[in-house]
Amino acid sequence: MPPPSTVSETALQGKNVLVTGGLGFIGSNLARRLVAAGANVTLVDSLIPEYGGNPFNVEDLRGRVQVNVADVRDPHSINHLVSGQDYLFNLAGQTCHLDSVRDPQTDLEINCRAQLSILEACRKRNPAIRVIFTSTRQIYGVPRYLPVDEDHPLAPVDINGINKVAGESYHLFYHRIHGVRASVLRLTNTYGPRMRVKDDRQTFLGIWFMRLLDGQPLRVFGDGLQIRDFNYVDDVVEALLLCATDERADGQTFNLGAPDWVSLRDLAAMMVEVYGRGDYEIVPFPPERKAIDIGSYYSDHQRIVNTLGWHPSVPLREGIARTLAYFDEHRRHYWTSPEKGIAAA
Amino acid sequence: MPPPSTVSETALQGKNVLVTGGLGFIGSNLARRLVAAGANVTLVDSLIPEYGGNPFNVEDLRGRVQVNVADVRDPHSINHLVSGQDYLFNLAGQTCHLDSVRDPQTDLEINCRAQLSILEACRKRNPAIRVIFTSTRQIYGVPRYLPVDEDHPLAPVDINGINKVAGESYHLFYHRIHGVRASVLRLTNTYGPRMRVKDDRQTFLGIWFMRLLDGQPLRVFGDGLQIRDFNYVDDVVEALLLCATDERADGQTFNLGAPDWVSLRDLAAMMVEVYGRGDYEIVPFPPERKAIDIGSYYSDHQRIVNTLGWHPSVPLREGIARTLAYFDEHRRHYWTSPEKGIAAA
Repeated sequence: MPPPSTVSETALQGKNVLVTGGLGFIGSNLARRLVAAGANVTLVDSLIPEYGGNPFNVEDLRGRVQVNVADVRDPHSINHLVSGQDYLFNLAGQTCHLDSVRDPQTDLEINCRAQLSILEACRKRNPAIRVIFTSTRQIYGVPRYLPVDEDHPLAPVDINGINKVAGESYHLFYHRIHGVRASVLRLTNTYGPRMRVKDDRQTFLGIWFMRLLDGQPLRVFGDGLQIRDFNYVDDVVEALLLCATDERADGQTFNLGAPDWVSLRDLAAMMVEVYGRGDYEIVPFPPERKAIDIGSYYSDHQRIVNTLGWHPSVPLREGIARTLAYFDEHRRHYWTSPEKGIAAA
Repeated sequence: MPPPSTVSETALQGKNVLVTGGLGFIGSNLARRLVAAGANVTLVDSLIPEYGGNPFNVEDLRGRVQVNVADVRDPHSINHLVSGQDYLFNLAGQTCHLDSVRDPQTDLEINCRAQLSILEACRKRNPAIRVIFTSTRQIYGVPRYLPVDEDHPLAPVDINGINKVAGESYHLFYHRIHGVRASVLRLTNTYGPRMRVKDDRQTFLGIWFMRLLDGQPLRVFGDGLQIRDFNYVDDVVEALLLCATDERADGQTFNLGAPDWVSLRDLAAMMVEVYGRGDYEIVPFPPERKAIDIGSYYSDHQRIVNTLGWHPSVPLREGIARTLAYFDEHRRHYWTSPEKGIAAA
């Protein structure tokens, strides 16, 4: 059952909507809601293997969405694609923190330069468009206090965080100076069906789902006492739609988050319990991860609650169960199980 | 007379020093001090007409510095040039706020992408190098309190400020994660001999010097009551050298500033008084400037005072007099005076 929506059922009827990163985790779940709401949906994705795009994510939407393979780093295709759109959900990004350290220029190209291209395209081709940009809690760095609200200093600990600060700043600048209506959502760990699970490039939680389903122990780094908060993807989609359809979101920055934050050790135990089998182990931090670890984090997300009436509705335990059920059914489209040898899509 | 130096006279003797933006305003003044201290100096500059590089700035150093024309956006030349250097003064940048709004991608290429190239070159080719990066007070945006210290939130109001935040963050990241020793100086308005005066791309103060010497009224935007602080270039050079030669600067971020902050109206009056003739006028803000104006600013620079013993030593009135004397003598190398029709270099 989807969460009770506070988005007007008719607000998106017949609207033209562009989603960058549209074949990825959040983009494909958003697409499903947009189609159900009667929007004309175009999904842009580069389908680069290391990123989150997966054609299977929208296989059930075939014929009801327009899929356009393009890279947001290509300003020519973006110039064309933003024209005539009512909404742009700007979700494409390089998300892996370790990759950003190993290859900072690629992270810059996607998370900074392409963002400027997209915003310039909006300014020149479609200044009436409304843009929703997804940022990340990573930009806060090591929390100075908990829960972390939107006024917490920005002190990212890695290249990805530095570039995401710039990316969201560009959006707010284009809003303020050029009148391109934009809002920013700072996501915490998002999970659910269609996430990338074959490695930990989107979040550690992806690979945990895969390992649990493959009968491998979950690996908890450090002492496992570090706290995190989690949003089920349907709740994030709801927040995206609220930002798009409520003008009180224009020019705003909102944290997402959830009240049922948990230590990683307890999360691992919960996942094992919900799945009914499996195990986890506490292992030392790999040095390259320790260097950019932020310790405990959970957010204060009262601003979006108060401004737009958003609230996370799927409890963590319930979301884990749904996610496990999804990947148990569709695993062959997401990874190669060692015992089965079936290739991922 | 140069300010009394607190930099050890022998610390730079025989050292290999690279200065990006080396034919520009601060770079060329720094070069003069480095040569006097016995360093082997290589100056890198793109000599792009819109930026601060001017061969005349180092004409008196001919034969005593190595000039290498290259653009910091070219990673190949940078890779070569950083090799074997003891110090890198990383001063090259796009500095014009309005240009960054008109052409955000160029600002990104210089202030972000090139910075990553430079730091990657240091990490791979010369990890023992010490890097000093010049940032700007613009990254604070509209001050929430005065004076502005280094812990003030970063909320830049324009693309240049956004990109400079990323640029300094990269430097501190490479220091923390990759061990490339780096420090960041956040400059306020710097002025003095060899600054760009033919337009206001470096600071409004440049064009004020030109207009005063050309007999044209200084143009003060708004009500003229906005406060600014100013550093004479010799004091900035001193701070750069202190950061390079004192390891307590490694990984640090320092504001520069001065105690004799002043309103723009009073500054205009002071310049007219020091020069002994001329006039100023209060004119409305051009809209594109008003949109990114930050109101009053002056810094708290106690951190560098306490950590490195730096203090600004040239009073504003004295610095203005020296600057006027320099440009009065050398004006033909810096701009075309309307009454004389002599081309700038």
